[in-house]
Amino acid sequence: MLNFDYQNRTRIVFGKDTSKNVGQLLKPIAKKVLLHYGSGSIKRSGLYDAIVGSLKKEGVDFVELGGVKPNPRLALIEKGIALCKKEGVDFVLAVGGGSVIDSAKAIAAGVFCEGDIWDFYAKGRSPERALPVASVLTIPAAGSESSPNSVVTNEATQQKLAIGSPALVPVLSVVDPELYFTLPPEQVAYGVCDMMCHIFERYFTQTAHTDVVDGLCESVLRSIMRNALRLKENSQDYDAWAEIAWAGTLAHNGLLGVGRAQNWAAHRIEHELSAIYDVPHGAGLSVVMPAWMDYVRGENLPMFAQFAVNVMGLDGGSRDVEACAREGVAALRTFWGRMGLPLTLMQLGIPQDAPFELMSKKATKCEGGKEIPLEGVKPIRWQDVMRILELGR
Amino acid sequence: MLNFDYQNRTRIVFGKDTSKNVGQLLKPIAKKVLLHYGSGSIKRSGLYDAIVGSLKKEGVDFVELGGVKPNPRLALIEKGIALCKKEGVDFVLAVGGGSVIDSAKAIAAGVFCEGDIWDFYAKGRSPERALPVASVLTIPAAGSESSPNSVVTNEATQQKLAIGSPALVPVLSVVDPELYFTLPPEQVAYGVCDMMCHIFERYFTQTAHTDVVDGLCESVLRSIMRNALRLKENSQDYDAWAEIAWAGTLAHNGLLGVGRAQNWAAHRIEHELSAIYDVPHGAGLSVVMPAWMDYVRGENLPMFAQFAVNVMGLDGGSRDVEACAREGVAALRTFWGRMGLPLTLMQLGIPQDAPFELMSKKATKCEGGKEIPLEGVKPIRWQDVMRILELGR
Repeated sequence: MLNFDYQNRTRIVFGKDTSKNVGQLLKPIAKKVLLHYGSGSIKRSGLYDAIVGSLKKEGVDFVELGGVKPNPRLALIEKGIALCKKEGVDFVLAVGGGSVIDSAKAIAAGVFCEGDIWDFYAKGRSPERALPVASVLTIPAAGSESSPNSVVTNEATQQKLAIGSPALVPVLSVVDPELYFTLPPEQVAYGVCDMMCHIFERYFTQTAHTDVVDGLCESVLRSIMRNALRLKENSQDYDAWAEIAWAGTLAHNGLLGVGRAQNWAAHRIEHELSAIYDVPHGAGLSVVMPAWMDYVRGENLPMFAQFAVNVMGLDGGSRDVEACAREGVAALRTFWGRMGLPLTLMQLGIPQDAPFELMSKKATKCEGGKEIPLEGVKPIRWQDVMRILELGR
Repeated sequence: MLNFDYQNRTRIVFGKDTSKNVGQLLKPIAKKVLLHYGSGSIKRSGLYDAIVGSLKKEGVDFVELGGVKPNPRLALIEKGIALCKKEGVDFVLAVGGGSVIDSAKAIAAGVFCEGDIWDFYAKGRSPERALPVASVLTIPAAGSESSPNSVVTNEATQQKLAIGSPALVPVLSVVDPELYFTLPPEQVAYGVCDMMCHIFERYFTQTAHTDVVDGLCESVLRSIMRNALRLKENSQDYDAWAEIAWAGTLAHNGLLGVGRAQNWAAHRIEHELSAIYDVPHGAGLSVVMPAWMDYVRGENLPMFAQFAVNVMGLDGGSRDVEACAREGVAALRTFWGRMGLPLTLMQLGIPQDAPFELMSKKATKCEGGKEIPLEGVKPIRWQDVMRILELGR
């Protein structure tokens, strides 16, 4: 196990009807709130009215900014920053999924930023200060409700980039499983894929002796798969949603990655796809992640065989770890296929003549003969990215 | 799953050599520290010198108070409170195991307490304010390094009582596995038993659909058992200590208990034994916990059968859950016996003529015909405590 320094301060208020008391929860910690959200779905569902009503009832002042799109855009964030500064906002409340929360984090950091907020993303710098952020989670998937990360798309440059900072960890997140009953099946599948991938990026490692955290990763992955199948049967299964939602938070609050070298290559590669083709993150991952697994599994067959047995439930294959490792990845593809997820770039709608070399070079920041290989089970250079995308055809 | 409200703010600094940088870690958050510790063992090991050296190097002012005994005593706590007030201490650093950390928490709360600190314990009141507490953990067992709890013994009244409050959660804990290499084998066994029991108290539940957290509990329990056996072979196995230490923290930081009704009957019963006979907490638990399991397993056979299969590794026994549940508890006794833990009151040194009725009535606060049954899988009245102790003979 590697040394680590772990803390996660997010208060999680979890369960039935918890989204009705947002005003009460914010009153002790917020004076003037930016209420940030996406499309009209929270208005149609009544969630918007419930939250606005609760804020008003408790006398919590707020201004609002809707319109966040999936793969959140820089332009709206800049608008949000200006609004916060003008209105003297001291707290950002995101009501939405990962995109809304990531957008809220960017606004929260941008308020204290002298120059251009995009600079942090472009240069991979960590903002030291941000307004406190809270969330009411409407899509369990991205884990942004207790993560230090924010991923934003700059439409002008076709870049989708991430930052991370302890200052961006939400102080409070409300997770109310009943809010997820009306999510369309493809959103459910994308969310399941996204949270599983957050665990995979941490799980597969070359670090030796990572017993406790291996076990945590494996048990959460099994729970996600079991309950995802229940949701396919009945999208209003409260118990299954509660498990999936809590798993999604655990998948990305850092706990499942302590003490081990991590990957994040599949995420970086997927970001290049969605930056140009605007595909849902979870859909892009369901193509890229198994391709990455197949590309790197030879570098640590025992780890991938352990995955096959402990996560995918295959028989142990100590006498032929190569076959066991291969079958584990195949079983994951089968499961994701059953969830209705795309497994090839073609299913994802990426054209055959997509600029694969350009995307690959962007993924490793390859410029003028220099590049930053993606880390993990095996270092990934731009040519490796090309081969992984090839495996995803 | 039940609704829950979860937060744990403790920053865990984990790994090799982390105990050498305590001064650096405290400098930004402490002005004048109470350095609180137990017997001379930290002086013999060199840890005391390392910490004092680090505090001095970073210019962190401190006063000190040693002498904490296992099952920490009220008298020393009162001394610590007076010392903190006199010296203007603003931070308490516990260097030790659970007893030292629990004592430190009592002192930290006592500084803000108008009356008698024992009042909080006697009346089960939660202190609202406390000085910030940090710890350098020298025995992985009690989980106090990131728990909101403190358990203190009042020698005068022969009472061992607990309090809990968010204000008592340490802000920082240093977990350095190399510090544990010199622990005597019985301490290792007591620690392993204690952390397993922290999970058992949470794990066994009548709450339905607790899938994710069941899995977390089960995987951590399996890791503890696997690595405890490695430590029996080699007490200087860094990797095994790292797993055990991290498991011990996870076992009691609240995470493994969210969303479910918990027990704590075995802990309450054990406290009555150690309040009078001053037995090590882990040793008392290894007698009481399996007895409690045998007493209550009939109330939820599927849960105890799940334990037998998923934790103790027995074959599935869906066709005879009663036998499967029984064999699971037997397998736990076998494992604890292998660790050298006592399994009967006699092995624990409790005399045949101990005041069992008195202890049982103290456990349920039975007075004047009223009592507060211990909650959990089955409500436990004083007569039930008698029967559980009988099963432990």
